[in-house]
Amino acid sequence: MTGGSPRRAAIVGTGLIGGSIGLGLRGLGWYVTGTDRDPCAEDKALEAGAIDAVGRDPSAEITFVATPAGATVDEVRGTLAETAGLVTDVAGVKASIAEAVEHPRFVAGHPMAGSEQVGMDGADADLFRGAVWVLTPTGSTADETYLGVRSVLAELGADVVSMPPDRHDSVVAVVSHVPHLTAATLMGLASARAVDDRVLLRLAAGGFRDMTRVAAGHPGLWPDICAENSEAIVDTLDSVILGLTELRLMVADHDRDALFDLLEGASDARRSLPPGLPPGTELGVVRIPIADEPGMIAEVTTLATDLGINILDLEIAHSAEGDRGVLIMVVPSEGTDELQDGLEARGLKSSVRGLP
Amino acid sequence: MTGGSPRRAAIVGTGLIGGSIGLGLRGLGWYVTGTDRDPCAEDKALEAGAIDAVGRDPSAEITFVATPAGATVDEVRGTLAETAGLVTDVAGVKASIAEAVEHPRFVAGHPMAGSEQVGMDGADADLFRGAVWVLTPTGSTADETYLGVRSVLAELGADVVSMPPDRHDSVVAVVSHVPHLTAATLMGLASARAVDDRVLLRLAAGGFRDMTRVAAGHPGLWPDICAENSEAIVDTLDSVILGLTELRLMVADHDRDALFDLLEGASDARRSLPPGLPPGTELGVVRIPIADEPGMIAEVTTLATDLGINILDLEIAHSAEGDRGVLIMVVPSEGTDELQDGLEARGLKSSVRGLP
Repeated sequence: MTGGSPRRAAIVGTGLIGGSIGLGLRGLGWYVTGTDRDPCAEDKALEAGAIDAVGRDPSAEITFVATPAGATVDEVRGTLAETAGLVTDVAGVKASIAEAVEHPRFVAGHPMAGSEQVGMDGADADLFRGAVWVLTPTGSTADETYLGVRSVLAELGADVVSMPPDRHDSVVAVVSHVPHLTAATLMGLASARAVDDRVLLRLAAGGFRDMTRVAAGHPGLWPDICAENSEAIVDTLDSVILGLTELRLMVADHDRDALFDLLEGASDARRSLPPGLPPGTELGVVRIPIADEPGMIAEVTTLATDLGINILDLEIAHSAEGDRGVLIMVVPSEGTDELQDGLEARGLKSSVRGLP
Repeated sequence: MTGGSPRRAAIVGTGLIGGSIGLGLRGLGWYVTGTDRDPCAEDKALEAGAIDAVGRDPSAEITFVATPAGATVDEVRGTLAETAGLVTDVAGVKASIAEAVEHPRFVAGHPMAGSEQVGMDGADADLFRGAVWVLTPTGSTADETYLGVRSVLAELGADVVSMPPDRHDSVVAVVSHVPHLTAATLMGLASARAVDDRVLLRLAAGGFRDMTRVAAGHPGLWPDICAENSEAIVDTLDSVILGLTELRLMVADHDRDALFDLLEGASDARRSLPPGLPPGTELGVVRIPIADEPGMIAEVTTLATDLGINILDLEIAHSAEGDRGVLIMVVPSEGTDELQDGLEARGLKSSVRGLP
């Protein structure tokens, strides 16, 4: 092999997400080892080219734990004990995992991509291209860990967003968990009514199919997710129930103006859902001299997230003395002023220049 | 022009649905006239090739009233008064319209196709290809009207399904109206939360986008729909609220088994949503001697709907004497036994033969 040995990654759990990571990394020339608690899934991953070999890899530079959420903590701990590399996971709930595993070589993550398909059959090397992948660094996460994992995710084409674990959990309750549970509720209702009226599901057109597509996903993941994020899910369900109850009153009272306002607001909001970064966006480089203290990257990247600023690239240049460095971020130019103000409010000086 | 004059259709309301009907019929060689209360929409329809001329057409063989639901009854009445042709409408609620307009040349309809786009810009000659188009014939609808409108819809590629108007309304509350209102509620909630947390909508991935897509539609239609179908919508909203409240309890109680069962049921139901008729389906021809009495077609086609049997073609062959005829239906062979039993229970004898 020319150019030295390939980079090595390991995957624990070769389902839809693990399999897609394997396909993506192998496409980039990595050597990927994988295991699954189901030997059939291991064979399938090998046949599909998602892994080079079945097994664990103590010398992997990064291990992705992509098991169901309930098994994540144990697998992450086991992997940290047996490898010297970086470890991340992909579970849909983060606070419980980040609390249970405080380790400099671990950063918890969540790729916001998927499909209603299950297992290796739905895996795709490009699953993460353009998709948001949340990382939730904490004070325990070493900067090198965050930077290392981030750069691998960027190679997979993901748009990496950082935020604290508990904030991730309350956000996904709103944009993922409760929508899924609501889709299942609508599907269940339609299905129950269809027992008495066979034509009902034949009239389920595009809008209904779009709305309930996520409900086709594998139900096995959800008891874990609901258990681990129950507080945020219950809170959000309460808001949805309240919203539907208010709506019911508007319909019963024929309150046309209130209905129009509600639906217009939703229509405007839906149409302005943020697209990806438009091509041709002007970019700027923000340089922040920092002390090499833990949690600095978590703080700065979370600030960018708060300000709605996409970080397109991120690295640390260490000074010769080793105890100080410069954090270098590439972000859209339009956000740099606001970012500098936010940094200054945290006692961090920064400089900006445009990227040609 | 060879082969005599083209068939003539008229469209009242050249929005998304009216424009798509115009494009479809013109593509089939029809001469189409159209009007809209907005002169700009008329110009746009003309430019886009959805109509041959702006105006009404008293000699149109069929007029589609494709205005917002609130204007439908007046427009249908006006059209019946000024033409001798068939009239149908496309409003999303049917009982109020079918009650208000009892006329032998009118049958109310509802194409179950659309998009979140608005107006002529979203129009598409193939919008109805493979889509269900509900017709709601009543005792007042002449057989010729039903057959004539049905055959034009079939030319547009639609899968025509017949059922009584009130049943249509309760079904669409479940598969269309309440899902739309729920999507708007979820979008509104996410949008409100995003005020405090700007990253929230950036994390809204494919599932959330799918679920809320319908909420991007024009809000102007919904006050009418909610007013005219308020009873069924309120009833269905109550079921959704009850379902979400039960779900909330399962999440709060960490009742994993109940959650799994609920989500598994929904997943199974979603995956078995009926697809279109599979290619290669064996077909049979059912012949039913009938007296020429009003409402017979409504009765027979609604029976087929009840039994979950797709009618692919339908015609009446009149006997020489003129007071009796034969209703001829093409349906999938697997349903013919059940259909014959159902017909016999209604005192109708029938014969079946396979279609080669």
